[in-house]
Amino acid sequence: MTALGRHAVDDRLDLKVVALGGGHGLAASLSGLRRVVKDLTAVVTVADNGGSSGRLREEFQCLPPGDLRMALAALCDDDDWGRTWADVLQYRFATRGQMDEHAVGNLLIVALWELLSDHVGGLDLVGRLLQAQGRVLPMAETPLDITAEVELPDGRRAQVRGQVEVATTEGRLLEVALDPADPAPCGEALTAIGEADWVVLGPGSWFTSVIPHLLVPDLRAALEQTTARRMVVLNLAPQTGETTGFTPERHLETLSHHAPGMRLDIVLADPSTVSDEAALQAACEVVGARLVLADVASEDGSARHDVTKLAVAYAGALATT
Amino acid sequence: MTALGRHAVDDRLDLKVVALGGGHGLAASLSGLRRVVKDLTAVVTVADNGGSSGRLREEFQCLPPGDLRMALAALCDDDDWGRTWADVLQYRFATRGQMDEHAVGNLLIVALWELLSDHVGGLDLVGRLLQAQGRVLPMAETPLDITAEVELPDGRRAQVRGQVEVATTEGRLLEVALDPADPAPCGEALTAIGEADWVVLGPGSWFTSVIPHLLVPDLRAALEQTTARRMVVLNLAPQTGETTGFTPERHLETLSHHAPGMRLDIVLADPSTVSDEAALQAACEVVGARLVLADVASEDGSARHDVTKLAVAYAGALATT
Repeated sequence: MTALGRHAVDDRLDLKVVALGGGHGLAASLSGLRRVVKDLTAVVTVADNGGSSGRLREEFQCLPPGDLRMALAALCDDDDWGRTWADVLQYRFATRGQMDEHAVGNLLIVALWELLSDHVGGLDLVGRLLQAQGRVLPMAETPLDITAEVELPDGRRAQVRGQVEVATTEGRLLEVALDPADPAPCGEALTAIGEADWVVLGPGSWFTSVIPHLLVPDLRAALEQTTARRMVVLNLAPQTGETTGFTPERHLETLSHHAPGMRLDIVLADPSTVSDEAALQAACEVVGARLVLADVASEDGSARHDVTKLAVAYAGALATT
Repeated sequence: MTALGRHAVDDRLDLKVVALGGGHGLAASLSGLRRVVKDLTAVVTVADNGGSSGRLREEFQCLPPGDLRMALAALCDDDDWGRTWADVLQYRFATRGQMDEHAVGNLLIVALWELLSDHVGGLDLVGRLLQAQGRVLPMAETPLDITAEVELPDGRRAQVRGQVEVATTEGRLLEVALDPADPAPCGEALTAIGEADWVVLGPGSWFTSVIPHLLVPDLRAALEQTTARRMVVLNLAPQTGETTGFTPERHLETLSHHAPGMRLDIVLADPSTVSDEAALQAACEVVGARLVLADVASEDGSARHDVTKLAVAYAGALATT
């Protein structure tokens, strides 16, 4: 497998790939994909309302920068310069004062947005700083809030608002929505999806990082209409809160529920997560997808994807004609 | 005068120059010098206790980054990349929240210090980002406070503590000192002074940006002992507070008072500031200096040096054999 490194000869696949998601799941996916394909674009959720991102969003009325920062750091060049600046971007202050928990990259991205009045221009500039192996775009041009209808443990229904609150709800998620419901999409993201050979959804927090893309009407239309093939990468474990007790097929069904018009080509799952392969096969067939089982789990038992294994799995799956 | 631009052919003077100071004065000096000489090092005061620097100093117990940031921005390469990142470094947040008034470069420099545990390494990395035409070093490895003995308007004597407080005192400054009095100097700064062809002191806030270098014992010894020639650049006007009513010769005398062992080679002054040329000539002779009068004042009447005029004056003065 020589496609995994960045050698003097660039033997990465000559494909345009758009990866959609947010948080650690998208970062792992990008770290794998950048070793495998030559043209990579990340489209990132902008609904975070917690931590450093949440505080900056409130202070600046700006997009939450955290997931965008993580995606950029994941795409950084694999040399000293790229790694150093990725470390700087990811560095979090730890003080007893006002800067506590702010990630440096978040502050830098917000400053560039203020200075340039241009989301994409600011992110592209950070990308150039990192010599990033791909481009990072926001899902929408305005900050979003995720709302959810949940069934509480006592059977009552309730509305939950905010990415953090939805991700950690004690209720069972029935439906998620965005506020505003029809945000201005990022034009460059729509173009990238239209021109892609493949789009990749997931892995990541299912209701708060993966499905939100399907809730932006223009983005869902672009995903439904693109001539690109579509891959969904399933999570390694349910997340306490938003997907407690979810089987892999249930993950797939909730995704399709939010974009019934979207056919899939490949569903990638780790065999260790599949207890009923026939059920997952059946769910894949409903959306037209081939099930690819591949060992992509980290060996530390963390429910995180192993970047190198993911790169190998992507190299195999994306080369499918 | 072709030495002022950065052309395909580098016709800058093949000299090693160390410029000592702080704030806007040093930044103007560096902006001029980087067009004129090939090897440039700034040695910057680290006693600021106001604004963004003061807040960060308190929160992180770190060197105040502001004057270092300004020096780096002044050395930035004159292309799109360099100017863009210099603008980013200099950008100040304006909010109603916690980030208000913080300069982005201050946050970045502090983050690098935290991450690398290395003042010089962090500043060198920002310099590489800016493709800086020179190096920026702190005057000392620990944050300093300036203290002053002043004569109040009613004739009583008092102690004033803090750069901001000293710079704006209503009293007449009699003597300034540092706390701690014998701080660890920056080794790279001592080396640069030892190897320099020229050292340049000023312009800048006289008691709070220029004279402090002479109060660090190791730095003063390096300045006294170097084989480099020494130039003092006088200010264009007294500063309300610390040098109210000071003549050019009084500026020179207070400098010499704090480093009696230091001989000078050139004193550079703008003719518009000199009301008694004979007195200034006499003061120059006391320290062994030749007086060079050159039009270096900005035409906006701001008491700031014009960078291009300063470059022309430096080119002439430094080429002296």
